[in-house]
Amino acid sequence: MSKHYNVYPIDGGVCAPNGFVADGVAAGLKKDNALDVAFICAKEGFSVHTLFTSNTFAAAPIVHFRQYVAGKQSNFILITTKNANAMTGKAGVQDICEILDALKKRFSWVTNPIMSSTGVIGVRLPKEQIIQAFEKFSFESSKDSHKRASDAIRTTDAFSKEIALEVELENGKCFRIGAMAKGAGMIAPSLATMLCFITTDAPIPAEHAQKLLQQYAKKNFDTISVDGDMSTNDSVFLLSSGKSEAYDEEAFGMALDTITHKLALDMVRDGEGASRVVAFEVKGARDEAQARCAAKALSNSLLVKTAIFGGDPNWGRIASTIGASGVEAREELLSISIGGVLVYDKGDIVFTPEVEAKAHKAMESAEFRIVCDLGIAQGAYVSYGCDLGHKYVEINSDYRS
Amino acid sequence: MSKHYNVYPIDGGVCAPNGFVADGVAAGLKKDNALDVAFICAKEGFSVHTLFTSNTFAAAPIVHFRQYVAGKQSNFILITTKNANAMTGKAGVQDICEILDALKKRFSWVTNPIMSSTGVIGVRLPKEQIIQAFEKFSFESSKDSHKRASDAIRTTDAFSKEIALEVELENGKCFRIGAMAKGAGMIAPSLATMLCFITTDAPIPAEHAQKLLQQYAKKNFDTISVDGDMSTNDSVFLLSSGKSEAYDEEAFGMALDTITHKLALDMVRDGEGASRVVAFEVKGARDEAQARCAAKALSNSLLVKTAIFGGDPNWGRIASTIGASGVEAREELLSISIGGVLVYDKGDIVFTPEVEAKAHKAMESAEFRIVCDLGIAQGAYVSYGCDLGHKYVEINSDYRS
Repeated sequence: MSKHYNVYPIDGGVCAPNGFVADGVAAGLKKDNALDVAFICAKEGFSVHTLFTSNTFAAAPIVHFRQYVAGKQSNFILITTKNANAMTGKAGVQDICEILDALKKRFSWVTNPIMSSTGVIGVRLPKEQIIQAFEKFSFESSKDSHKRASDAIRTTDAFSKEIALEVELENGKCFRIGAMAKGAGMIAPSLATMLCFITTDAPIPAEHAQKLLQQYAKKNFDTISVDGDMSTNDSVFLLSSGKSEAYDEEAFGMALDTITHKLALDMVRDGEGASRVVAFEVKGARDEAQARCAAKALSNSLLVKTAIFGGDPNWGRIASTIGASGVEAREELLSISIGGVLVYDKGDIVFTPEVEAKAHKAMESAEFRIVCDLGIAQGAYVSYGCDLGHKYVEINSDYRS
Repeated sequence: MSKHYNVYPIDGGVCAPNGFVADGVAAGLKKDNALDVAFICAKEGFSVHTLFTSNTFAAAPIVHFRQYVAGKQSNFILITTKNANAMTGKAGVQDICEILDALKKRFSWVTNPIMSSTGVIGVRLPKEQIIQAFEKFSFESSKDSHKRASDAIRTTDAFSKEIALEVELENGKCFRIGAMAKGAGMIAPSLATMLCFITTDAPIPAEHAQKLLQQYAKKNFDTISVDGDMSTNDSVFLLSSGKSEAYDEEAFGMALDTITHKLALDMVRDGEGASRVVAFEVKGARDEAQARCAAKALSNSLLVKTAIFGGDPNWGRIASTIGASGVEAREELLSISIGGVLVYDKGDIVFTPEVEAKAHKAMESAEFRIVCDLGIAQGAYVSYGCDLGHKYVEINSDYRS
């Protein structure tokens, strides 16, 4: 039987858990004095657990972390935008060492600092600008500092993404978990950088941390991005200060699931130029792997994405995409509904003008569901995607964007 | 040693080989009395060899062919546009039977006729309109009838695609091969229907036909479309009248290669809304499969396609896409050139403003090459793709397009 615990949404983002301070400052990396350098720190230290990109060309910050920090207690993450420090080779890692040495020199309590970056690929970091920004750092917690941090990590994100929860266990003790993320760009095929920083005061055992990250964070971010098709910089950090006495594996897993599901959906909502978010639910597949394969094919199909942009209930493109995905399927067992309207029913063409009008109307919602029941067995998967319209082309074709 | 033969481009398209007649008529399926029904016939018969879609939901014409015609001599192919007769179940196959029965009734010499269709999915064929079009059929060969046929099979194609060759063997004997194709729509991920009809008077042995289709036609059409990601209707027909005495396996293979390579490139050039054709050449890969995987990933990347649309020599997106494809690669061995301009050189960032300007200039060409040398081994593959711009979005998001 499931245990009882109470979950309360709270303010504070990554600063909500006990022990953490975060802020964002303007270093002149972005235009118009916008916030562009952020940090998260906990003077008494935190343990670090990570999920990194599977891209062969992992960026310098990831190479640096693996080489110098992995397995150690840290107390500082420095986050910079506009430049991904990717494809910069050994020089890129050396740049990080120099920046972090300057950080340790400026703030002597900093131990095993971590750097995380997002932005354009193949350009050396503007070291001096970043180092000069240290002068603006303040470690006094203030009401809005977490907002400035989540604002500073945005690139083409239209809005900042953060969340925090307090979880009360059966024994009355509480732990907190907070997070901020960035990741607009194309949702899938995703090469936009996804960065997610999760803080908690729960004393999570190392052996649980990695398992729960895989089980919940990876699962939720996978529903919105293609397997293996990750950017050079994608990173999820889970930082635990251990300042609370409360911990329960199930409760923590649930909280991590809630938080990463919310941030994943925020990323889809904020997909570059996206006007509609669609949940592609495939059920009745031979197994979950086949359901996933078909759901991913739908959320990645250009023809499906452009039809959604146009509000066109073009179920033929949906059927054809499922057929092309190679999963086991039969016309006479398949049914398709769009926004709750049945448009294809096990071999029967039920797409009358009335049905078409209803489905077209349902597609005017900002968020709706396309359900494909393969009618074979019990495999199910939901993938989240968005439409593709002119704004996406504009954002991504701007010369020197 | 390679044999000698002479190859001459000739006029006549599918009508060039001895024995074939083709034409296109207007049946009112398209607007404005445009040509929309075509046929290819050879009264004395032809043998039929095919390549069909791997889509699970193969359309009714393919189901009908497999059920009623495969393995038999035929003498007539009826081709209709605007309606794919896909996802129409048994009724769709029955519709074909009725249409072809009417055809045989009208023209008593017609034997084992074949039907091939392209267009919208999930709508029953307008049988009466098609049958009435038979009255307009004329089997007198005329200079332009092959052009009318290739025009009639267009859907969103901006131009018709045909070619014919005469091949003279060492013994002075000649055979002819002609073809017409349609396939605009998205090149890859390709769900647009690709139809290709190849006629020849060479007496090609059945055991060669299938092998050569796989070896050359499949290879060439694969370079422009994702594996397995085929539409419900994709079909290649090779029809042989055997009216010539000349045949040589190597010469015929070369001719088939030339013809299908040309038609495949025509399809990319005619990609919906495409303004630029790019050859993505990956070399130095561990093996051909890895080169193919990386080249396909490049030609399918939305970020790469939109950068090409914008004329942006964004080599970081190219590198990141290769990294995400999962093939063996190392920063310090990789080099990338765009339109002949080296933009990344084995770990060195050579992308100065001058190099950028040169690469940007090179991308203004209607056709150019992006070469990625992985520097690992000898695997190589070239994939052809096009840019993605506003016109693609317009064409594919039009409600009820």
